[in-house]
Amino acid sequence: MMDRIVINAELVESCLMTLAEHGAWGETGVARPTYSPSWVAAQALVLSWCVDAGLDVRTDAVGSVWARLEGSEGRPAIVSGSHIDSQCPGGRYDGALGVIAAYIAIRALKERFGQPRRTLELVSLSEEEGSRYPAADFWGSRAVIGRIAPEDPDRVEALEGGTIADGMRAVGLDPARIPEAVRTDIGAYIELHIEQGPLLEQAGVPVGVVTAITGPREYWVELRGRADHAGARPMDLRLDPMAGAAEIISGVIATALEMGRPAVTTVGRMAVEPNASPIVPERVMFTVDARHPDPLQRLELYARHERLMKDIAARRDLEISWTITGEHLPCPCAPRLVQTIEESAKELGISYVKMTSGAAHDAQQMALITDVAMIFVQSRDGRSHTPEEFTSIEHAVAGIEVLAATLHKLAY
Amino acid sequence: MMDRIVINAELVESCLMTLAEHGAWGETGVARPTYSPSWVAAQALVLSWCVDAGLDVRTDAVGSVWARLEGSEGRPAIVSGSHIDSQCPGGRYDGALGVIAAYIAIRALKERFGQPRRTLELVSLSEEEGSRYPAADFWGSRAVIGRIAPEDPDRVEALEGGTIADGMRAVGLDPARIPEAVRTDIGAYIELHIEQGPLLEQAGVPVGVVTAITGPREYWVELRGRADHAGARPMDLRLDPMAGAAEIISGVIATALEMGRPAVTTVGRMAVEPNASPIVPERVMFTVDARHPDPLQRLELYARHERLMKDIAARRDLEISWTITGEHLPCPCAPRLVQTIEESAKELGISYVKMTSGAAHDAQQMALITDVAMIFVQSRDGRSHTPEEFTSIEHAVAGIEVLAATLHKLAY
Repeated sequence: MMDRIVINAELVESCLMTLAEHGAWGETGVARPTYSPSWVAAQALVLSWCVDAGLDVRTDAVGSVWARLEGSEGRPAIVSGSHIDSQCPGGRYDGALGVIAAYIAIRALKERFGQPRRTLELVSLSEEEGSRYPAADFWGSRAVIGRIAPEDPDRVEALEGGTIADGMRAVGLDPARIPEAVRTDIGAYIELHIEQGPLLEQAGVPVGVVTAITGPREYWVELRGRADHAGARPMDLRLDPMAGAAEIISGVIATALEMGRPAVTTVGRMAVEPNASPIVPERVMFTVDARHPDPLQRLELYARHERLMKDIAARRDLEISWTITGEHLPCPCAPRLVQTIEESAKELGISYVKMTSGAAHDAQQMALITDVAMIFVQSRDGRSHTPEEFTSIEHAVAGIEVLAATLHKLAY
Repeated sequence: MMDRIVINAELVESCLMTLAEHGAWGETGVARPTYSPSWVAAQALVLSWCVDAGLDVRTDAVGSVWARLEGSEGRPAIVSGSHIDSQCPGGRYDGALGVIAAYIAIRALKERFGQPRRTLELVSLSEEEGSRYPAADFWGSRAVIGRIAPEDPDRVEALEGGTIADGMRAVGLDPARIPEAVRTDIGAYIELHIEQGPLLEQAGVPVGVVTAITGPREYWVELRGRADHAGARPMDLRLDPMAGAAEIISGVIATALEMGRPAVTTVGRMAVEPNASPIVPERVMFTVDARHPDPLQRLELYARHERLMKDIAARRDLEISWTITGEHLPCPCAPRLVQTIEESAKELGISYVKMTSGAAHDAQQMALITDVAMIFVQSRDGRSHTPEEFTSIEHAVAGIEVLAATLHKLAY
């Protein structure tokens, strides 16, 4: 067991506040979409920190920043990082804290222990949120694992118009070179991130050790009935898709509640046609976002949702159809890495809980080419994707200490 | 008992088809918004028919067409009519059939019996549907009863922009003269209209004798919870207004079903914020349109809806508020007129049922200044406010025969 690697709380706070100046939104928010001037400035700031710390820096083909502390035994590299793009507006911590954590941990390790055996790398990934290019979420990590199709750059559009290829060229990146971002020499990816939920706060611990990242599936459900006059068609003769939708929404939410944590099901988006007060709707469409980190329980959740939707539609004589508009398999974290993180926390005397992640992360993408793990730190009131997002410096420091100790065990 | 007043089926059909040419939409539809060129042409056609029939015609201050067959004992007048504006698109029958029925009935009475004792009048009212000026529904009948406020013409806006005052001036009407449309010399208003529901078809009869027009109320309900990450916030810790809305929608629909006909409750319009799949909504808003023609049962329906909405919101810890965005009191038809219509149908051997109207009509407005009654004719499949709206000529003729016999009893 080594001595504690002390993390400087003032440095953590100053990095967070300085980075948050780029794209500042209101008092406490950040709106920093990928390839925007504020994003470019923020990536340049991360790069300058790493240069000052004596790391070897480069920017890859999609604009992700990498900083390397070469190991005596070389690669495969131990990589830590996250992203610095944000929701618009989002908060100062989502993504950003993971990049800052990697920077501060690697810098502290270098200052204290010098050259590692295994190469350590920081990465600040491009476009995780999809807040500017909705179809380009995980753009940075997808580039690393080779999962950007040749036609994607000209196909993926910005909310404000134009393609991501245009956005890349505007900041000096050549879309034709995206394949050069692929990495085949990564031996582990460890991402520190705010929890974005309330469980650590409720447990009264600063740190969560993630055992798996949930597998989400998004359905777009369409129920079709018959538009009717709201006054002249008796209740018992209606084919009302709104009545069917209400029963289905209650049903899928009740199913997830009944299965219990960590199953979650959300209906967040809805569209009604013709959407007029005095007309029984013709069509009601809505999303069903359902997630579970356990592969088998996840499939059971979906089977129950689909059976319920079919049964209710059939009983009400409504036409139903759905498409699966998004899907990720659950991503288990590598047991060897989970164990190393737990050992580090125990040695440091930092209390933690093991938990699953209900949100999606770059680590899920990286898992296709390497072992991954995640360290969560407490989010106040579970808020995220809002300027109200907050994590205390004390909790951030605890998380970074665990990260630094983990990287030390893996690389030295 | 008089001889049967025979109604010419070919004339009914030719009037319907000729009028439908103005604003024709697709094969069978009509889109004829008030003060549009097609509406002006349709009103001119009605006026020309009445001139040819030897009636005294005029256009009032809001563009409604009136045609008079002066009685030997003069006024108060017996008025019959409806409106010729339509939904966009709507069908050929809603409103139009009532104007054509009044024209054909009064023309037949004049040809057969000459001058009546009491004055008979036809009216083709301006803007019933509100399809161009949503806040101006019943504009024509409201002008007659003096219920257009001085500021309304400059305040009521068209869907495409501009005010109804602009629309009036564009067709040569002076908004300042609206008060001149008021009538104080009407002794009865009898409106023939398509049913817009399926009850006559199901009963297998051509004609409905309306005993009351329902009283609608429209609520705009807002449920406020807390926006949360759809993955990271456990089900049991959510304040999800979509879950509350689904339970309320199921509940109010079940309440109307349980009260039974003619109670109806519809949720036709909904808005979700932020309306994003991976976010538990912050706010869900929806309409509750609830109608009953019986004054006491109507208030019971509303009391049950309001109690249910409050209880569900309280149990789920959601904030709830609502505003009443539309309200009409139920309108009973005058028993003496209902009885006269029934006697006419019986004498003609035309089968009918007594029923209430679930839709709103100009007759409700006219009831503020005179006795009213309505004659319904069968709608195929209960469809209305759509190009698929259809009423057979046979059923239209039966209704017009009942109308003509009723006007004969009242005026001769």
